[in-house]
Amino acid sequence: MDCRAEHIAVGSEILLGQIANGHAQRISQAFAAAGLPLYYHTAVGDNLERLRAVFAMASQRSNVIVVTGGLGPTADDLTREALAAHLGRPMHEVREVVERLEAYFRARGRQMAPENRKQGLLIEGGEFLPNPNGTAPGMYVRDGDTHYFLMPGPPLEMVPMLHHHVIPRVRALFGLQQRIVSRVLHFCGIGESDVDQAIPHLTSLRNPTVAPLAGEGEMLIRITAAAEDEGAAQALIAPIESELRNRFGPYIYGVDDDTLPKVVARLLREQGQTLAVAESCTGGLLSSMITAVPGASAFYRLGVTAYHNEMKVRLLGVRDETLASHGAVSEQTAREMAEGVRRQAASTYGIGITGIAGPDGGSPDKPVGLVYGAVAGPAATQVYRLQLGGSREQIQIRASKHMLWRLWTIASSGKVRI
Amino acid sequence: MDCRAEHIAVGSEILLGQIANGHAQRISQAFAAAGLPLYYHTAVGDNLERLRAVFAMASQRSNVIVVTGGLGPTADDLTREALAAHLGRPMHEVREVVERLEAYFRARGRQMAPENRKQGLLIEGGEFLPNPNGTAPGMYVRDGDTHYFLMPGPPLEMVPMLHHHVIPRVRALFGLQQRIVSRVLHFCGIGESDVDQAIPHLTSLRNPTVAPLAGEGEMLIRITAAAEDEGAAQALIAPIESELRNRFGPYIYGVDDDTLPKVVARLLREQGQTLAVAESCTGGLLSSMITAVPGASAFYRLGVTAYHNEMKVRLLGVRDETLASHGAVSEQTAREMAEGVRRQAASTYGIGITGIAGPDGGSPDKPVGLVYGAVAGPAATQVYRLQLGGSREQIQIRASKHMLWRLWTIASSGKVRI
Repeated sequence: MDCRAEHIAVGSEILLGQIANGHAQRISQAFAAAGLPLYYHTAVGDNLERLRAVFAMASQRSNVIVVTGGLGPTADDLTREALAAHLGRPMHEVREVVERLEAYFRARGRQMAPENRKQGLLIEGGEFLPNPNGTAPGMYVRDGDTHYFLMPGPPLEMVPMLHHHVIPRVRALFGLQQRIVSRVLHFCGIGESDVDQAIPHLTSLRNPTVAPLAGEGEMLIRITAAAEDEGAAQALIAPIESELRNRFGPYIYGVDDDTLPKVVARLLREQGQTLAVAESCTGGLLSSMITAVPGASAFYRLGVTAYHNEMKVRLLGVRDETLASHGAVSEQTAREMAEGVRRQAASTYGIGITGIAGPDGGSPDKPVGLVYGAVAGPAATQVYRLQLGGSREQIQIRASKHMLWRLWTIASSGKVRI
Repeated sequence: MDCRAEHIAVGSEILLGQIANGHAQRISQAFAAAGLPLYYHTAVGDNLERLRAVFAMASQRSNVIVVTGGLGPTADDLTREALAAHLGRPMHEVREVVERLEAYFRARGRQMAPENRKQGLLIEGGEFLPNPNGTAPGMYVRDGDTHYFLMPGPPLEMVPMLHHHVIPRVRALFGLQQRIVSRVLHFCGIGESDVDQAIPHLTSLRNPTVAPLAGEGEMLIRITAAAEDEGAAQALIAPIESELRNRFGPYIYGVDDDTLPKVVARLLREQGQTLAVAESCTGGLLSSMITAVPGASAFYRLGVTAYHNEMKVRLLGVRDETLASHGAVSEQTAREMAEGVRRQAASTYGIGITGIAGPDGGSPDKPVGLVYGAVAGPAATQVYRLQLGGSREQIQIRASKHMLWRLWTIASSGKVRI
């Protein structure tokens, strides 16, 4: 039988939006890394009937049910009671657990409140999972082919229990040979639908799976393979990655944890090159993206946000006549901003961005979302005209990322030429 | 009939743990604030059969089913298809939506991929919800007493749709009599625990409720009252707000949707004053925060990210001897950066920030998180020494927000004096 897992988070504070259900992601990551398929997340409040109904539903579709929260001592900690009710089994107090609880409080100079005794209740046929980091032990209960794992809610208690007890047990239950390996390719400068349309023969594969995911101003494709070991999984991934690189090479700027600022930083540092940036409509966002990467000071020399035309002239050397005849949002201004900031900073590359981020300031001639970006380098200056969609924030993000991608393309082609 | 809502997030990337299901919390917060009970979260993958089964289950226990994700153009975007299958209804293409999509791509100089047509498919009896921030419209479908709301996954598209279309419709559906009114007070320059500790008599109230919430570099208190009408709710809130203002006045920079950049922008525009910013360790983040507000060009003149010392000297007029004797991270350098950028831009105020954002570059003398910030104004220059905690990103955010708050304090006290 295959593993079909799901996660149930218990706590009204999650449904009121007071806390994020971070355990869902933690448990999903641990199951994925262990090659254990997990098909559902549920969150439900501290309510006996609803909780019991959720257990009934989960047991019809899943055979591994991982529950977090609701194991504490208070009246609204109901996970134990709800599972016992769902299974129709009694609970009994385990003396040594209660004594350990009493010792725990004594060691802290406090007397145990009577409510805490309920943390020593075990569902018939179940087994406690040790919790060295708190008072509430976890619990494992088997019901036919269905396996229930109850864990406490505090992350510092749940996470070690998950990795030391739950994952190893589930792997053992299903005699798992399979390893799951993922490879992520990051794209910029191309739309998700343009990629998707070209590769229906890949996105319909079952192993490896090929999943495009849209991001803001970029996208990624995740290739995931299941095989008996890491090497065999990699061997399934490699030909797919090759095909994607053959089709989309220039748009693929990185893999796995890469980001545009990281690959630009790595490339410029490797090549001993430097960068300066002149921004108008992006207002410092591009500079901020670049300096979010630790160690940016090794290659990043200067950012100028020249919001006012006078600043464009005085600090960047944009010519008055350029502004007068072409306007601040023009190919010529972008070019002079890039060249000016490069000169000012004596850097290898200069980027200039000018445009209309909106929501106001557009015209039929120059609508909101029109952006000119330029990269000035040792050999030449390239200028790009972009027509971007979305909110002010989206236009700023998309323009900044697009220009990082253009810089990366230019700087890496220089590398190839050498 | 009462509202019994639930949220379903669609996307295999959630179940693989690749992204957090942040929408669950956003939707829960919006429903809670609107006084609408929401009892379950579910996450399910991009799988037609599982998605359909989740709709079937949800329709048995809930009458408002809010779905996010799976409305994109690709083959694994299956939310529409699954709901149509669950309801046993056909879909048809709505010509004007397809034409709007085609125009969207044309305006960006691209041809629409045929896959995008499916974003114009409407479930019979349904209604589109407008999405000004992307290509995928939302959808509302009623089936007897059950109401389905489908929204796109990208947060910048989902959040406005939730607040402008979904919440108002759900409230109207259930003819909510009790008005729920919230008032949010925004704090900067004081820690959450310092506030929390001083007001146990307020945080224990039931109506209105008083909930402190930590933010990055700031915090807020949400006062929420339920009453028969707006006026009665406001009357419950007013004395609480007064007490908080008496205790914490100087730290309360705004209310409701205010942000630090917004209140600074409003104040400077009102006073006809201008601003320029010189950054080092924040790398353009402060400039980017300021220019995220539409209309910043009315008061924001210049941002300089002087990452390299030579740039601090050349563009900002920081003296070589200051850098040599005090170092780049010093009170004196912050002062000269603020005064220099103010002079360069001929602005009313100049801000200078220099510090160590980490993770490297700290020393026992000048540890990671040490930041000097200065505000230069017509009357004087104020310099502040901050010792901030957290990651590189957190230090950058906290330093930027702190200096906006200092500027706001100085600029508004000027206003009072007039």
